[in-house]
Amino acid sequence: MTDKTLWVGLIGLGTMGQAMAANLLGARYPLTVYNRSAHRAQVLVAQGARLANTPADAARGDVVITMLADDAAVESAVLGPDGVCEALGPKAIHVSMSTISIALAERLAEAHRHRGQAFVSAPVFGRPEAAAAAKLFVVAAGKPIVVERCLPLFEVLGQRTFVVGKEPSKANLIKLSGNFLITSVIEALGEAFALIGRAGIDREQYLELITSTLFGAPVYETYGSLIAGERYYPPGFNASLGYKDIRLVLAAADVLQVPMPVASLIATRFLALIAQGGGDLDWAALAKLVARDAGEEGRLLSRR
Amino acid sequence: MTDKTLWVGLIGLGTMGQAMAANLLGARYPLTVYNRSAHRAQVLVAQGARLANTPADAARGDVVITMLADDAAVESAVLGPDGVCEALGPKAIHVSMSTISIALAERLAEAHRHRGQAFVSAPVFGRPEAAAAAKLFVVAAGKPIVVERCLPLFEVLGQRTFVVGKEPSKANLIKLSGNFLITSVIEALGEAFALIGRAGIDREQYLELITSTLFGAPVYETYGSLIAGERYYPPGFNASLGYKDIRLVLAAADVLQVPMPVASLIATRFLALIAQGGGDLDWAALAKLVARDAGEEGRLLSRR
Amino acid sequence: MTDKTLWVGLIGLGTMGQAMAANLLGARYPLTVYNRSAHRAQVLVAQGARLANTPADAARGDVVITMLADDAAVESAVLGPDGVCEALGPKAIHVSMSTISIALAERLAEAHRHRGQAFVSAPVFGRPEAAAAAKLFVVAAGKPIVVERCLPLFEVLGQRTFVVGKEPSKANLIKLSGNFLITSVIEALGEAFALIGRAGIDREQYLELITSTLFGAPVYETYGSLIAGERYYPPGFNASLGYKDIRLVLAAADVLQVPMPVASLIATRFLALIAQGGGDLDWAALAKLVARDAGEEGRLLSRR
Amino acid sequence: MTDKTLWVGLIGLGTMGQAMAANLLGARYPLTVYNRSAHRAQVLVAQGARLANTPADAARGDVVITMLADDAAVESAVLGPDGVCEALGPKAIHVSMSTISIALAERLAEAHRHRGQAFVSAPVFGRPEAAAAAKLFVVAAGKPIVVERCLPLFEVLGQRTFVVGKEPSKANLIKLSGNFLITSVIEALGEAFALIGRAGIDREQYLELITSTLFGAPVYETYGSLIAGERYYPPGFNASLGYKDIRLVLAAADVLQVPMPVASLIATRFLALIAQGGGDLDWAALAKLVARDAGEEGRLLSRR
Repeated sequence: MTDKTLWVGLIGLGTMGQAMAANLLGARYPLTVYNRSAHRAQVLVAQGARLANTPADAARGDVVITMLADDAAVESAVLGPDGVCEALGPKAIHVSMSTISIALAERLAEAHRHRGQAFVSAPVFGRPEAAAAAKLFVVAAGKPIVVERCLPLFEVLGQRTFVVGKEPSKANLIKLSGNFLITSVIEALGEAFALIGRAGIDREQYLELITSTLFGAPVYETYGSLIAGERYYPPGFNASLGYKDIRLVLAAADVLQVPMPVASLIATRFLALIAQGGGDLDWAALAKLVARDAGEEGRLLSRR
Repeated sequence: MTDKTLWVGLIGLGTMGQAMAANLLGARYPLTVYNRSAHRAQVLVAQGARLANTPADAARGDVVITMLADDAAVESAVLGPDGVCEALGPKAIHVSMSTISIALAERLAEAHRHRGQAFVSAPVFGRPEAAAAAKLFVVAAGKPIVVERCLPLFEVLGQRTFVVGKEPSKANLIKLSGNFLITSVIEALGEAFALIGRAGIDREQYLELITSTLFGAPVYETYGSLIAGERYYPPGFNASLGYKDIRLVLAAADVLQVPMPVASLIATRFLALIAQGGGDLDWAALAKLVARDAGEEGRLLSRR
Repeated sequence: MTDKTLWVGLIGLGTMGQAMAANLLGARYPLTVYNRSAHRAQVLVAQGARLANTPADAARGDVVITMLADDAAVESAVLGPDGVCEALGPKAIHVSMSTISIALAERLAEAHRHRGQAFVSAPVFGRPEAAAAAKLFVVAAGKPIVVERCLPLFEVLGQRTFVVGKEPSKANLIKLSGNFLITSVIEALGEAFALIGRAGIDREQYLELITSTLFGAPVYETYGSLIAGERYYPPGFNASLGYKDIRLVLAAADVLQVPMPVASLIATRFLALIAQGGGDLDWAALAKLVARDAGEEGRLLSRR
Repeated sequence: MTDKTLWVGLIGLGTMGQAMAANLLGARYPLTVYNRSAHRAQVLVAQGARLANTPADAARGDVVITMLADDAAVESAVLGPDGVCEALGPKAIHVSMSTISIALAERLAEAHRHRGQAFVSAPVFGRPEAAAAAKLFVVAAGKPIVVERCLPLFEVLGQRTFVVGKEPSKANLIKLSGNFLITSVIEALGEAFALIGRAGIDREQYLELITSTLFGAPVYETYGSLIAGERYYPPGFNASLGYKDIRLVLAAADVLQVPMPVASLIATRFLALIAQGGGDLDWAALAKLVARDAGEEGRLLSRR
């Protein structure tokens, strides 16, 4: 497989990025990594990764992946000084795997097009455990010939890749809509658990019942288990990031003129969770907010 | 199997009740049926069912099942003149399988207890197709010895029975909470489809993507398919009944003092759907309301 | 004025009823009072009122007024044994001044019509201070000739009477819609105060500004002052009663098929306030809930 | 009064700006006006105003007022090339009277501070009729000595000025919170009118009743009258601008971490109104959306 010779850069070594980098190294890709706080790169360097000093330095290979926390971080790493755009070669590809706004995805696409660089949006579904186990789902969009070159990388990182079109931002919209669906499950489960719990019904038994019947999907199993067991810390994905994402959903809804009442309600609830000190709890803690609203005094929103 | 000799009555021959009656006949239970409009019993009578003239007449065997549309119908059939309570023998069992309020379940339990009659709440999950295929999920609660006598019947009607405790109304609360979860999926899918559809993303492909990843549960497959294809008529379960159920959820939430913001929002949306003429559409038509709110002129809420 | 010779009964001696009774005595109406807990009648008896032992006993004059907390109390006092209906003479009038459901108002109208008794719905706007000062606003509906006979009484109790039609329940609907408007003001003020307060803007100065400009109405002055000063106890009208009323609004909205999203939202918020222990705070404490949602730790919802 | 000799510039000749300019001319202030479409200046030029070719040209006097539709317009006119900042003299004052975001107000304050220019935020309450009648309410914040120099101008433009502090953005937050309060009144009135209207109660009589009792404020009179008469076109202030403002409110709520559930709900409703073609109706048309949700077929949201 000639693609094994792709030189890969990866920018962003949060929990997700670290796991992805380890998998790329495991598949013997030559890998350069960059992170604002270089110490997060130590383990990877010990495993053979090269450490870059700037985003630009990580972008001098065939493919550079960005996996960063938010729009601002991506914008700075890609469009800022010493950023990806300055260094990326004419045939090289920037693969944006972060969850970012539609607007930024469009600006990135335009910036790369302008410079004759290739660009693929490929956000992922999956929490850090899934990233570590190479079980992510990758949603990719971009020029077909470019996306195809990336497929071997996606195979290393995930369990399945969905190619959803030529326009990169479409992949981001699907990712955002998926995160909205997850938050709707969390909030609804939170309300349901609060209701049946108040009546004295066993929460674990209830979870087993619903996931054995109509709701037997990973999203109900994962979040149902966190909520039934009230395990909100440490977070797999924290409430502040969840709030960021739901606001990106609403920004897209605004541009597309689609009123989304449940999404709006959930944004307000995330803000309440964060205002009460729960920003670094798992986003499943929306359910804790329901319990608190219902007067469960013993479960105040202290951080852990 | 001695239980095969149970004499069974079934009150309520809507789409669900008819399918259940056919399955009981198929399993060779001696069956008496009652329906307010007797003509709905014809096919069953041709298959060997006996036709009762009153609910009381249907309740003179070992077990009588009620499968009716709402609280009022159950109340009238059970507690009214010529009702179940008047005729049910001292060892006989009333199995309430309708989706009814917690309050009525408690009143029924009390009325039967008072008369030394046995009572089991056993609401089901599943649409008419599932009832016909004997694939319902039965959620049963009542005295263990009584529930046990009913298990063979539940095996005939469904694919699995969950016994959730001694207090009948607990089963009803679980059923109601489950219906709430379904409505939350419908509304969230409606918002997600409206969003990605407006951006030109193919709805069927999107559905395939989400159900192949985190949302691979029957509830997403069933309702996602109805929404992607905009198939809201004829209804499997109509919006007016859905509205009835979500109000029963809110009534329980009121008594248990659990604020449920998404449930409240969904109740308001059902009322809007009904006020605009969509009461006899499938309850999945909440998604049609989202599309209409977003200005999709071509999809007005005419009845079909 | 021959009407001064009207013999009046008054059932219900809560804060509102007591103030109204005192005003009727002050205007020299012969007055019989009834309250479930007789001790609340003592001061009035000292001022000349006669004490009745049953609602029926209070209903043997020309006019009997009911001013009770909720539907159940009115239903029991009017339609129950030893109730108003049993004793009211053929030309005598029942004036229902409580805030009750449309459904009950219609049942009362029907019950009285059936017995040839006269009935007027005349709910009031105004808190206990207004009742004491005879500054209530009375919204009256019923047969014109009957309403007219009651006008002198309303003049004693309030500052102005609005006659809104022949159908008694119309007055109740107007009253309920008015209470909804009040709750919408409370919630909106709560959100506005939380916002500007968080930015360090002085709350009293802000209140002065808004009530000097577009919002110079009693409802903003009264509730703005309670909220700016965080004075929620003792209540003029408590949150539990407010919740009762907003549910009556939603019940009417349901029957009339008018989705009311803000009313639904406010009902959910009242339930949260009550679940967190705030049921006996003034209903203006909806604003306290906003502050708590925003993380104001020092203002927990302990009762006072 | 030496202040009469102030040389004034006014940028932005929408309905509000034109009325304000006319009043300044009427008070004999030497006035230079600028508008992107110069033709809107014709009447004013005929009345003695000088026409500027750029925002900078309008900013060479003692005071320059900006009265523009949104953040983008203000940002361009003030911070862009040929903008106010480039031309404003060291002692000259920029008075920002538009409804803009807290964030932009802070950036303007910083930009002017950086250049040694004076800056006052002075947004106004009042529709075009009020601007024409010099009945605006001005909410001003900035350095006391600078605000004081502006007071004579505010007296010409409005009926009362509230000075609310030194930090300009505080005035903007108060303005935004006030607009939120207005939208909450519109939405609540819309729901109340839909409810009582459906019951056959006369809408004008209802309005008279509520504004004669607890709700006797200009905001209820103005919007109640528009809603009762269903007069949504031509708009005094259109729904698209209302939506813009409520989003600015939510942006401030986000930064200040104050969850505002009613504000969020109203934003969603504005988006629905706009998506259905109502963006150029008066923002009171939120009430029309309620009617439509309630199934009033005859009142579709065609533009007028």
